[in-house]
Amino acid sequence: MPSQTPLDCPLPFADYPNILLAHGGGGRLTRHLIEELFLPAFRNPPLDQLHDGAELAVGESRLAFTTDSYVVRPLFFPGGDIGTLAVNGTVNDLAMCGARPKWLSAAFIVEEGLPLATLERVVQSMRQAATVAGVQLVTGDTKVVDKGKADGLFLNTAGIGVIERPLAVNPAQVRPGDGILLNGDLGRHGMAVMAARESLGFDPPIQSDCAPLAAPVLALLDAGIEVHCLRDLTRGGLASALNEIASTGRVRIAVDECAIPVNDEVRGACEILGLDPLYVANEGRFVAFVAPGDLTHALQILHSQPLGREACLIGAVTDAAEPLVTMKSRIGVERVLDLLSGEQLPRIC
Amino acid sequence: MPSQTPLDCPLPFADYPNILLAHGGGGRLTRHLIEELFLPAFRNPPLDQLHDGAELAVGESRLAFTTDSYVVRPLFFPGGDIGTLAVNGTVNDLAMCGARPKWLSAAFIVEEGLPLATLERVVQSMRQAATVAGVQLVTGDTKVVDKGKADGLFLNTAGIGVIERPLAVNPAQVRPGDGILLNGDLGRHGMAVMAARESLGFDPPIQSDCAPLAAPVLALLDAGIEVHCLRDLTRGGLASALNEIASTGRVRIAVDECAIPVNDEVRGACEILGLDPLYVANEGRFVAFVAPGDLTHALQILHSQPLGREACLIGAVTDAAEPLVTMKSRIGVERVLDLLSGEQLPRIC
Repeated sequence: MPSQTPLDCPLPFADYPNILLAHGGGGRLTRHLIEELFLPAFRNPPLDQLHDGAELAVGESRLAFTTDSYVVRPLFFPGGDIGTLAVNGTVNDLAMCGARPKWLSAAFIVEEGLPLATLERVVQSMRQAATVAGVQLVTGDTKVVDKGKADGLFLNTAGIGVIERPLAVNPAQVRPGDGILLNGDLGRHGMAVMAARESLGFDPPIQSDCAPLAAPVLALLDAGIEVHCLRDLTRGGLASALNEIASTGRVRIAVDECAIPVNDEVRGACEILGLDPLYVANEGRFVAFVAPGDLTHALQILHSQPLGREACLIGAVTDAAEPLVTMKSRIGVERVLDLLSGEQLPRIC
Repeated sequence: MPSQTPLDCPLPFADYPNILLAHGGGGRLTRHLIEELFLPAFRNPPLDQLHDGAELAVGESRLAFTTDSYVVRPLFFPGGDIGTLAVNGTVNDLAMCGARPKWLSAAFIVEEGLPLATLERVVQSMRQAATVAGVQLVTGDTKVVDKGKADGLFLNTAGIGVIERPLAVNPAQVRPGDGILLNGDLGRHGMAVMAARESLGFDPPIQSDCAPLAAPVLALLDAGIEVHCLRDLTRGGLASALNEIASTGRVRIAVDECAIPVNDEVRGACEILGLDPLYVANEGRFVAFVAPGDLTHALQILHSQPLGREACLIGAVTDAAEPLVTMKSRIGVERVLDLLSGEQLPRIC
């Protein structure tokens, strides 16, 4: 829980000489690694935007380019597997740049001894997911490492999308007054993976929400909705995504707990495991920061989309000020929604 | 040695129900995995070319897109490390498409417990290599897996390059009469990594040839040389690259052992370890298939380039016929240069 591990001071590398699981958790230590190591080393305008992907100019065209590795354990879980995840995760990062996803690469790191039938099943999932998302897998790579030197299968996909409209969708564009729309209930993916990993026999099993989000996003953009920022709610969940945007865009954000949908099965599972659904990863959920005048229209559009039927307004950008995310709780108390310092759920994507 | 493990029949999956190290070795089993699993699943025109990268059309522009994961062990070796390798390897795959390398992604899979100083050293190597190669690292990802579930650090880079000239450079373009140019001596990278891994105290240590190859390639293309195909000689070395091109382009290739430079240290190390330098990986070597009328001019151009000073003509495409690669040995005997069935040197890239 965030409040149990507050850490508001910078974390010099000297305090953490070795990599911790939390460095990959999407919380404070991940941010630290990015800001203290990667950004200073590679500094350039596309990278500096700290968005889900880089925006590139090629001739008259604008492209989005993104990459993600997938290390989920177990490889198969209710509602998906590492293959569907690897396609949808990268498709979604492109969609969050306002791009139409077009082409993916696929790179496999396989542990010696993995059954070929397992690899085949993953490849078939990727094929299906690519067909549904309307993308092509155009280039790839396979490496095999000795037994005991990997965990079955790691997958990387990079993706290229085309930004078809003259828009700027990134954290620097958010501004006071923007409403924050969420396309559905939270926490399914993380809890589905966790339950499969720990063999928790929820009945019926919680299904991952893993899905390609380009259709609802492009529906908003095609309708001319003034979208300022988009972010899918993967590692670290809603709370981490809002914190990242508040921090990069230098704004305050306020959300209302009552407005944030979490279904009963997920809420129950979270309570049993001592987890907060606001920090649990999703793979088919996103927030859209939308200009106030366009909110009603945007909700109408989302409601007409299969992946936006339960879309709702969960909060707003309140000020251009020191970055902060607050939440009004069910009992009306306002509290700070912080970045996690530790790692709540390792290896869910 | 290839002649010790001939396997000319197809290998149904049933014969190999589990992944072997050789599935990642760039030889016969890698090819089998590609042809029997990946191609049928993902079938599309860019992938079907079986080139080092995919060619994509965006507006009026032509792009090359490629990906590679790097699992080299140890992480650091004379002449480079996993970081230099990850930048140059992907830059070189783009160059082999005739593209000017522009943008890379970088995705890290880190084992819990890796010293941050090690990661920092790799990142600094990547920065330096990117500067030398003239590319930007524009987007990235970091995942951390539990201790014992990876081998320190795995890296993936995907890359985008721009194809600036109206040319077709891929295996389908090779034709009888094409000369085969090689830009330098073989086997340094594989032997440098092997020596570092096994703590073989060669004195002086063999240095990897790891280097970005876009400059000599673009020099050829800018001069209007009729280049039909390019291939860097990584996993599986020269012999595997020639076999892949012969197979995809459906041609016969003949090379002359006397013309293929291997320096004395590499030759000696290979003899001690029972390896054939023609199958050892390089990371700064490529072959260019060039129309016969342009060979002299192409060699002049390569000789003026730092990475082409020792360029030489090593053979030619002899026929459009059943794919085959033959080599005239030092004692004048012609023998078949086959794809490896096993794995000669695992995890050298």
